[in-house]
Amino acid sequence: MATKQLGRPMPSLVHYPLDPSSRLIRLICAEYGVPLDLEEMRPWLRDEQLLELNPAATLPILFGESETPAIGILAVIHAVEDFYVPADGGSLMPGDPHARAEMWRLVEWVLFKLNDEVTRYLIEEKIAKRDQRGATPEPSVLRAAKTNLTEHMLYFNWLLASRNWLGGDEMSLADFALAAHLSTLDYMGDLDWAKANEVRDWYSRLKSRPAFRTLLNDRVVAMPPSKGYADLDF
Amino acid sequence: MATKQLGRPMPSLVHYPLDPSSRLIRLICAEYGVPLDLEEMRPWLRDEQLLELNPAATLPILFGESETPAIGILAVIHAVEDFYVPADGGSLMPGDPHARAEMWRLVEWVLFKLNDEVTRYLIEEKIAKRDQRGATPEPSVLRAAKTNLTEHMLYFNWLLASRNWLGGDEMSLADFALAAHLSTLDYMGDLDWAKANEVRDWYSRLKSRPAFRTLLNDRVVAMPPSKGYADLDF
Repeated sequence: MATKQLGRPMPSLVHYPLDPSSRLIRLICAEYGVPLDLEEMRPWLRDEQLLELNPAATLPILFGESETPAIGILAVIHAVEDFYVPADGGSLMPGDPHARAEMWRLVEWVLFKLNDEVTRYLIEEKIAKRDQRGATPEPSVLRAAKTNLTEHMLYFNWLLASRNWLGGDEMSLADFALAAHLSTLDYMGDLDWAKANEVRDWYSRLKSRPAFRTLLNDRVVAMPPSKGYADLDF
Repeated sequence: MATKQLGRPMPSLVHYPLDPSSRLIRLICAEYGVPLDLEEMRPWLRDEQLLELNPAATLPILFGESETPAIGILAVIHAVEDFYVPADGGSLMPGDPHARAEMWRLVEWVLFKLNDEVTRYLIEEKIAKRDQRGATPEPSVLRAAKTNLTEHMLYFNWLLASRNWLGGDEMSLADFALAAHLSTLDYMGDLDWAKANEVRDWYSRLKSRPAFRTLLNDRVVAMPPSKGYADLDF
């Protein structure tokens, strides 16, 4: 157990294990060497406790340095960047303005476009619906999400064919954002690596980082991860 | 053709007049005293020129200080903040971390939640569909979007009943984000001020700012603005 410094409690994250935005924050904090207390919530239940914190009922929520929490993925990304970048450098936000702009373009793509067209539908159909009312996924929605996912994978594969990291030469927040989404999709068994060799190589590099370990041990009740999910040699 | 200053041409924004994210950038730049060259594009046409710049076919796109453009609302917000905050201060991002976190929570709410549940449907139904194929709006979609809008307005009204500005004591990016969306909704005649007195008072203060003038002169072909759109005493 980590020794707590006086007046500086361990930051605490309200999260759901398969929520990709929550995973992104867990990855960044692990990468920055910041231990997190984790408190699990299922956002689709819209608990009173969650709605009081965040009427939008979205995750993650970070209780950190300031008295009030940072709420929602954009606020939490910036709070982590404000408070937890290691003193010896190593921020996941590139210093070069051009690289930073490219990073934000891709972060927006992943957190909002990929989420809107793929991830949120698959979580809703495969996890939330079953958990809320024992319902089974609607096949037409799964099909549409998978078709969209194929297009996204082609694009990322094309980008990574000419780049070392998603945003360019440097590893950045954009890599962790995409890895967070892919790790959720991989858990649910929705990734087809056959046509995405470049993405597979890149994901394999990220998955081998110590920061990734915490995610690979996640288990969601009643839904074991797909074969290969925790395998570094998938 | 504009006379360019050596090494520092006027920044140029690829936008659509009623796109709320484009409006947000026009408002911030006007507030910061940064003149913009405007180039109009209709993102739903997915022009080759647009797709080459941004395969996501979203706006805005800012050509500014660096060689390559900033693409998408998050990249452009950060590029403007990096390069165009007036030297004498007055950034729309609060210095206090708590206020900044609250700003990001609300920016995310407006740019993604309000957009997803309201604005993008109304633009699609009222503008894009007609422009693309002369189609009329689908009444059930308009109804759902308006019902969602009522809920959002109640929330913003509740917030503004106890706050001077949307994020708290200071005017911030959150105010301009919401004002950009409301100005688009107002143009299309979708706002009902009757149950939103606090929002109306707040919007009236923002609308009176010089930065707002540029938006109030916008006219979209074949769709005149609603009564009161450009009226400071609406």
